[in-house]
Amino acid sequence: MYNAVLLLDEDFEELRKHMLKATKEQIKINYESEEYALIQAINAYNETLRSYNLLYERLTEWYSLYFPEINLASPKTLAELVLMLNIDRGIGVEAIDSVINDRSKSESIMSKLGSSMGRLMQPEEKEVIIEYAKLSLSMRASLESLEAYIKGASGRMLPNTSYLTDEKIAAELLSKAGSMERLATFPASTIQLLGAEKALFKHIKFGSKPPKYGVIFKLADVSNSRRDLRGKIARIYAAKIAMGLKADFYSKNFIADKLKADIESSIKRLNATPEKQKTEMPRNFARGPRHGRPNGPRKHFDAGKKRQRPNFH
Amino acid sequence: MYNAVLLLDEDFEELRKHMLKATKEQIKINYESEEYALIQAINAYNETLRSYNLLYERLTEWYSLYFPEINLASPKTLAELVLMLNIDRGIGVEAIDSVINDRSKSESIMSKLGSSMGRLMQPEEKEVIIEYAKLSLSMRASLESLEAYIKGASGRMLPNTSYLTDEKIAAELLSKAGSMERLATFPASTIQLLGAEKALFKHIKFGSKPPKYGVIFKLADVSNSRRDLRGKIARIYAAKIAMGLKADFYSKNFIADKLKADIESSIKRLNATPEKQKTEMPRNFARGPRHGRPNGPRKHFDAGKKRQRPNFH
Repeated sequence: MYNAVLLLDEDFEELRKHMLKATKEQIKINYESEEYALIQAINAYNETLRSYNLLYERLTEWYSLYFPEINLASPKTLAELVLMLNIDRGIGVEAIDSVINDRSKSESIMSKLGSSMGRLMQPEEKEVIIEYAKLSLSMRASLESLEAYIKGASGRMLPNTSYLTDEKIAAELLSKAGSMERLATFPASTIQLLGAEKALFKHIKFGSKPPKYGVIFKLADVSNSRRDLRGKIARIYAAKIAMGLKADFYSKNFIADKLKADIESSIKRLNATPEKQKTEMPRNFARGPRHGRPNGPRKHFDAGKKRQRPNFH
Repeated sequence: MYNAVLLLDEDFEELRKHMLKATKEQIKINYESEEYALIQAINAYNETLRSYNLLYERLTEWYSLYFPEINLASPKTLAELVLMLNIDRGIGVEAIDSVINDRSKSESIMSKLGSSMGRLMQPEEKEVIIEYAKLSLSMRASLESLEAYIKGASGRMLPNTSYLTDEKIAAELLSKAGSMERLATFPASTIQLLGAEKALFKHIKFGSKPPKYGVIFKLADVSNSRRDLRGKIARIYAAKIAMGLKADFYSKNFIADKLKADIESSIKRLNATPEKQKTEMPRNFARGPRHGRPNGPRKHFDAGKKRQRPNFH
């Protein structure tokens, strides 16, 4: 037995090399598609956006120690103004106006600057807050480049879905599914709830209200519509997105314009219906008899079956 | 009555102006101290550090699509390598080594680069990932400048506390307290638990184990010591920090060297004691009979009093 193996050693070695190479090739082919880069990009975008908003809040709070009278709505303007005012305090209205783009507002900032209640900035503080404001601008540049990439890549890979929703929502759906192939096989009901997993499992486990939409709530047509129609509109969108995804992945035809027309006429029909009054139900009824207690799912979920507890947290 | 007011209008106007000016002056004086800038800086540091670590994880995952064989422990090296390899793929070992600083490792990266299983990067992907790697380097620069500022400011305002702990921990204690004055009046027990508010209130409300340390767990002397001594060492530190803080705020004397010597001798004495074996207690006993149920605090907290539920979440 041992002898036989020894005789075949060289062949085995050859075979092993061959198999390894083939596996590597296969891995390379599997990762060839751009979809994985798009998934990384949309996640990077969402994470950076969160950091950027956090940084803006912090910068506002910090800078208002020195200039509490300031009140700017845009993170970019604030960062640019912090940079400008700190680098050169003896500044003119024109320079401020080049950032603010509103003459009367710039003049009011200029006049407040002289009589500010804020603390005088020490050189070390100036240095550190300038660096911090610069970080805010780099984040913005990064966000812009990520957004540009997402727009291009989503448009290339998911033309129908991007047309129906928008490029970022399409990329987010892809990221939740994990791959184009998986996303294309999802039924409309799954697409409707992608991104609402937490609420869905809470519903299954504790009997809270079921979610009506996940990622697609970001669509203006869903979030800005009448409260009693939102779930219905989300369902209409999900059905058409499911068709668009199949076209994106399999046939590569562009059918989104027809789908979009269908969606619009359905929404118009829905909007013509009279608005349903929200009926006040007793709290326990609406939320299920066992809300908040991990004693198992609601009755209708396991009627007739042995009680099973789903295995997730 | 009305007439009288009308007659005094001008005086009132004068008085009002005067009062407003005085209030503004007072606000200015209250915000004069550098402590508020330090609080902003330490919070900015902690937030940026969290964003930085998140970005590093994302960049690692993303870049491994193109070069899965890479395995670098440092965020900075990864970002620099991403930049370098992307800007110029036909690169030499010397260039890689200028980032890695380890000849054998650079050579292995170089050899893996030729036979990588990764996906070939498209120009748009190259552009976006370069921008993202640059953001990582800007964050690092910002972190460094924040750290330098914190070191300087903590050393100026909290010399004793900084000597006993370190500059960042001192600044974090200040940030939790909200102002120097408040921090200086805290008793040692409060200082020991600053930053462990959540665990403390969980203990009071549900009867879980009480926390032994908050922010000061970051001290190597506490976190690296024997498990049965950590709480004791945290208490010793908190007592001396409380004294150091009073010196920092009131007397402005430097007494930290003596306090530090006291701490060290106490720790030495503690380490000489035999290690206590962890006794296995029944789960319910250790965690309190009512753990996890919001039915009110444990018995010994409201013995003899009417049951009160604290009003926080």
